[in-house]
Amino acid sequence: MEDNKAMVIFQPSGRRGQVPKGITLIEASRLLGVDIEALCGEKKKCGKCRIRVESGYFQKFGVESSMAHTTPWLEEEAKFINEEGRKAGYRLGCVAKVEGDLLIFVPEESRAGKQVVSKAARDIRIEHNPAVKIYYVEVEPPTFEEPTGDFERICRELEKDYGLKNLTVDIFALRQLPTALRDGDWKVTVSVWQDKEVIRVRPGKAEASYGVAIDVGTTTVAAYFCNLNTMQVIDTVSLMNPQCKYGEDVMARITFHMTSEDGLKRMSDDIIEGLNWLVDEAVKNTYPPKKKVKKGDGGEIAEEWVEVPEKGKTYLRLTREDIEDLTICGNTAMHHILLQLNPEFVGLAPFPPVIHHSLDIKARDLGIRINPASYVFVLPNEAGFVGADNVGVLIAEEPYNSDEIQLIIDIGTNGELVFGNKKKMISSSCATGPALEGAQIQFGMRAAPGAIERIKIDPDTHEVDYKVIGRDAWRSYSEAKEMQAKGICGSGILDVLAELYRAGVIIKSGVFNKEQKSKRYRRNTENKQPEFVLAWAEETSIGKDIVITQRDVRQIQLAKGALHAGCKLMMRRMGMDKMDKIKIAGAFGTHVDRTKALIMGLFPDCEIDKILSVGNAAGDGCRTALLNRKKRDEANWVSRNVEYIELTVETDFQQHFMECMQIPHMKDPFPHLEGVVPPEVLNQK
Amino acid sequence: MEDNKAMVIFQPSGRRGQVPKGITLIEASRLLGVDIEALCGEKKKCGKCRIRVESGYFQKFGVESSMAHTTPWLEEEAKFINEEGRKAGYRLGCVAKVEGDLLIFVPEESRAGKQVVSKAARDIRIEHNPAVKIYYVEVEPPTFEEPTGDFERICRELEKDYGLKNLTVDIFALRQLPTALRDGDWKVTVSVWQDKEVIRVRPGKAEASYGVAIDVGTTTVAAYFCNLNTMQVIDTVSLMNPQCKYGEDVMARITFHMTSEDGLKRMSDDIIEGLNWLVDEAVKNTYPPKKKVKKGDGGEIAEEWVEVPEKGKTYLRLTREDIEDLTICGNTAMHHILLQLNPEFVGLAPFPPVIHHSLDIKARDLGIRINPASYVFVLPNEAGFVGADNVGVLIAEEPYNSDEIQLIIDIGTNGELVFGNKKKMISSSCATGPALEGAQIQFGMRAAPGAIERIKIDPDTHEVDYKVIGRDAWRSYSEAKEMQAKGICGSGILDVLAELYRAGVIIKSGVFNKEQKSKRYRRNTENKQPEFVLAWAEETSIGKDIVITQRDVRQIQLAKGALHAGCKLMMRRMGMDKMDKIKIAGAFGTHVDRTKALIMGLFPDCEIDKILSVGNAAGDGCRTALLNRKKRDEANWVSRNVEYIELTVETDFQQHFMECMQIPHMKDPFPHLEGVVPPEVLNQK
Repeated sequence: MEDNKAMVIFQPSGRRGQVPKGITLIEASRLLGVDIEALCGEKKKCGKCRIRVESGYFQKFGVESSMAHTTPWLEEEAKFINEEGRKAGYRLGCVAKVEGDLLIFVPEESRAGKQVVSKAARDIRIEHNPAVKIYYVEVEPPTFEEPTGDFERICRELEKDYGLKNLTVDIFALRQLPTALRDGDWKVTVSVWQDKEVIRVRPGKAEASYGVAIDVGTTTVAAYFCNLNTMQVIDTVSLMNPQCKYGEDVMARITFHMTSEDGLKRMSDDIIEGLNWLVDEAVKNTYPPKKKVKKGDGGEIAEEWVEVPEKGKTYLRLTREDIEDLTICGNTAMHHILLQLNPEFVGLAPFPPVIHHSLDIKARDLGIRINPASYVFVLPNEAGFVGADNVGVLIAEEPYNSDEIQLIIDIGTNGELVFGNKKKMISSSCATGPALEGAQIQFGMRAAPGAIERIKIDPDTHEVDYKVIGRDAWRSYSEAKEMQAKGICGSGILDVLAELYRAGVIIKSGVFNKEQKSKRYRRNTENKQPEFVLAWAEETSIGKDIVITQRDVRQIQLAKGALHAGCKLMMRRMGMDKMDKIKIAGAFGTHVDRTKALIMGLFPDCEIDKILSVGNAAGDGCRTALLNRKKRDEANWVSRNVEYIELTVETDFQQHFMECMQIPHMKDPFPHLEGVVPPEVLNQK
Repeated sequence: MEDNKAMVIFQPSGRRGQVPKGITLIEASRLLGVDIEALCGEKKKCGKCRIRVESGYFQKFGVESSMAHTTPWLEEEAKFINEEGRKAGYRLGCVAKVEGDLLIFVPEESRAGKQVVSKAARDIRIEHNPAVKIYYVEVEPPTFEEPTGDFERICRELEKDYGLKNLTVDIFALRQLPTALRDGDWKVTVSVWQDKEVIRVRPGKAEASYGVAIDVGTTTVAAYFCNLNTMQVIDTVSLMNPQCKYGEDVMARITFHMTSEDGLKRMSDDIIEGLNWLVDEAVKNTYPPKKKVKKGDGGEIAEEWVEVPEKGKTYLRLTREDIEDLTICGNTAMHHILLQLNPEFVGLAPFPPVIHHSLDIKARDLGIRINPASYVFVLPNEAGFVGADNVGVLIAEEPYNSDEIQLIIDIGTNGELVFGNKKKMISSSCATGPALEGAQIQFGMRAAPGAIERIKIDPDTHEVDYKVIGRDAWRSYSEAKEMQAKGICGSGILDVLAELYRAGVIIKSGVFNKEQKSKRYRRNTENKQPEFVLAWAEETSIGKDIVITQRDVRQIQLAKGALHAGCKLMMRRMGMDKMDKIKIAGAFGTHVDRTKALIMGLFPDCEIDKILSVGNAAGDGCRTALLNRKKRDEANWVSRNVEYIELTVETDFQQHFMECMQIPHMKDPFPHLEGVVPPEVLNQK
């Protein structure tokens, strides 16, 4: 790394890059396209730009070096940050300067723009049969003739009215019981888990109970907050996996555990804290927004926060205790790390997980702050590299109930593949890395306002048109300064490779064409690498050209090559040379342009209409397990009935991988690309 | 209270009394018969007399007054007590002086004599079927062909070798699994709870697992530490219930909860801490004792602790993790307080408990530090005033399997009665208070060395002969100074009433006879109350006469009257005027002289040979539940099939109670006392 530059990572956005030492954190944030609130114009007057400097570790450099590399604390910061905040690492972004590598957390209130949640919930059909159900009962008060205990009185009514038998009770719920019965004048609402265990007793009649389904991805964690009675998704909240600071992919996290004494506990604590943040956020959103208003007439004027409810909107005003069920899925490594199960052997051949079967664990045992008597249901794992997230995809998509031969691709930081139909199903995994999600790409970023999400390149002029998140009009219909582009998100990255190729900017091998038609192609003045300008500095909010580099192209090729090779080897294993349907799951699946995915050769050829995006199917599966307990049994069944294939042990894996990095693969006929890619491009050597 | 005196209570012995202000804590301990180690003769040189001043509360005076009433800390104490100890309230007994009411804890190492454990385990027949069993398995290591997860590999063997199916696993056990499997070279010992849940995995072959049964009495807590495989009782450890500082009986504790904001939590924390102490103690006893030895030759001489194993003895060297099961019984209030269940309604008519049914609670959820994945089994309650301890007595004695009509009396701080046979059983409770255990009696004390445990009074001379714990020879065979008497324990208290009566010192009403034959009878010089000297000052270690006062006699009468009246009313309810057998359970049951119990009218008349002592049957029952899981179901059955009778609502209860306070009850013929009590005494008016 250059001596006068430092690596800065902003969380939760994940934006990262080299910045010159000596600039303020706000200036660094601007360079990297992170929006920090700064109402006073960085005059140290508004205190809005409070950020937290994380004392994390920089796994990337092979050594653990503390990252609190900023200029020392200045007294003027004390006006906005109290002693407690100071201890927690809070600084003013307009005061503290970059002195070395830094990991910075931008708190919600300091963010200028909200992240676009890309993991929105899909409408899927779910049979209503949640694991947690509520029952209303009225009981007779005890008398000298009938002084039976409180719990037995309730059980009697639950059996009489609802047929529930042999109920047990959690000690936390039991502690609520005597007071709830008397406060409710012997009428209570009882929450029962799996028709087996009483987990909550509330006085009077309660209308609903709530649950959260959480998909713990290597990079992104998405939570679906649901009403367990109506099945309505009340809110969707997401977060960057706080473990990202220990390494971007699964193997880096496992390595961190193996090389640091309390690494497993630290990573587990971090993700648990993340889950608690998601729950808090979901709960907070059930209250009206608040506004600071001036108070008092004459004399001293005080400020206070008051609620500003939207007209006609009712607010649930829930607490953490109102969340009575939680389901979690994640890949096997995320699963193990969250539960503090040694993930070491998941990373060592033959990659056995510690457990396949689903787990019911009391939330309190994991430090998850929902109703303390509640269980967390953790979906089962298929194999070391096909985890509970893939099981989530399967119970959402149910390929095992279908005649059609389906290829289900779940692209996250790792790629997981399932192939087959009701007769037989096999699964595998491939190391796509996080490139397809925007990481490891110079101007890659998460799906947030300003991210380029669609690109078109004119084959005749090599001129670029594009669209950013948060603005409906394309570049060609806008003034340059209206675009305010910041970087490229996952869907933009998929577009760019296909467009570069279709327009002839790059050739099949991924190398830039010798014949370029615009001055967008150039060599970087510093590192001499070829790059192609997608947006000129004047169109951006970061004041510099947004480019795609030769290295970026290579990263994307590596990812898509791994995926494509995996698909092919699985088809071979099943003795099939085509499939009826391709389903793309994962965060960016929602935005992927099917044609462009086919052009770039993300997977083998398929009829374009048969390529479907199924969104965050892992999250959907997790949600079905929350709302329909039968899906939990189904998950356990499927986790043991999909055969896992280890592709990397196939002797010709490497050769396939190399071939599949090309765009599109030469040896595969791609009949469905006819007419989509110009023949002279498609048939080039 | 007199201004120049203060109330001092010593724990864990429970000795208490008024002492002059201004004396040292060691001097106070001597006055109250508590033995504190003081090798240097109170010269502030040995530091052996370290005690802890508790910042408890004095419930007795109606108000909560802090009890840290000592003279200020002196620098000379710092030589023996570090800063941490000072903060915890430690003082030197020879330095700190009494300035006001005090609650003092004498740590184990500062005690001069060990308390005699009166709650020893009895030999009872138990079918071997513990809830926690260990299974040894050898599994195949995973391969690419068979990469199944660790847990599933173990389950497969457990099913194949032992027929165990559908096992679940505790998260704490699961965390041990991958390392245990590899450390044990794929051979492990698995502990399974109720053939349902894996709670521990140890590498290699383990021979045994251990458990503890704990009887939580209002005054005494007794723990039976057992090998779950051989059923051997390895150790018995007991402790004064640390809640005693909040009040001596059940109602006082409930009142403390109702009148203090966090009273329930404080009392719960205290008893949990007590349970942890018992476990630690039991574990500690599995190591050889240690001795301090000088180390090094010439130069500096250091001291170090070295183990001094007894010859030929093997030591188990266990840890807390080795305790894998725990069963608890206690009366309903103790049950509720321990579990932090609101005990308020147990103290309010119609006294419904929060729950009858037994509970399986993870030890970690209660803060009990045994194997963290282990369950605590809490025995079920019969009713508000007949708790899980009585259920313990019942499953140990099994009157429900007998043709004989039995009266089972469990005398602790509360008296619990069960009457009936296999056809029908009723239970009740009576407020005996702690007098029969030595509390509320001026010179009452616990069963420890120096306690008078047997008394004989000569009817002709009124001279007294007695025996103390720790010395085999009676007073009549000893020199005066050899006796070193300190007080009277429970069994002595039972003796004394019968003997006073039989010898004619008191009359039936409990009042001292006008005709006294010795100068042992006198009026106290201070309070003018009649009293009778049992041991002269020269025979004691406390330097003053040990007497029994009129008020003491009244206390014992109140206790025995409540018990006797309860028995009679239960017999009436069942329409019976006699029983086949009386079983006396409880701490002092072991020591009770059956004849004397009959003489004093502790219960209705019965053939003396049919009066049996069954020791701490509650603890025995708790132990059977530990070692035979079927007994747990039996406990739940019996708790709902013994009919609870509330005696205090009977219209003539009060009249019966008054009558039964007399010695023995006039209206009952006591044929079995013929020849035991002189006719002129028995037939006096």
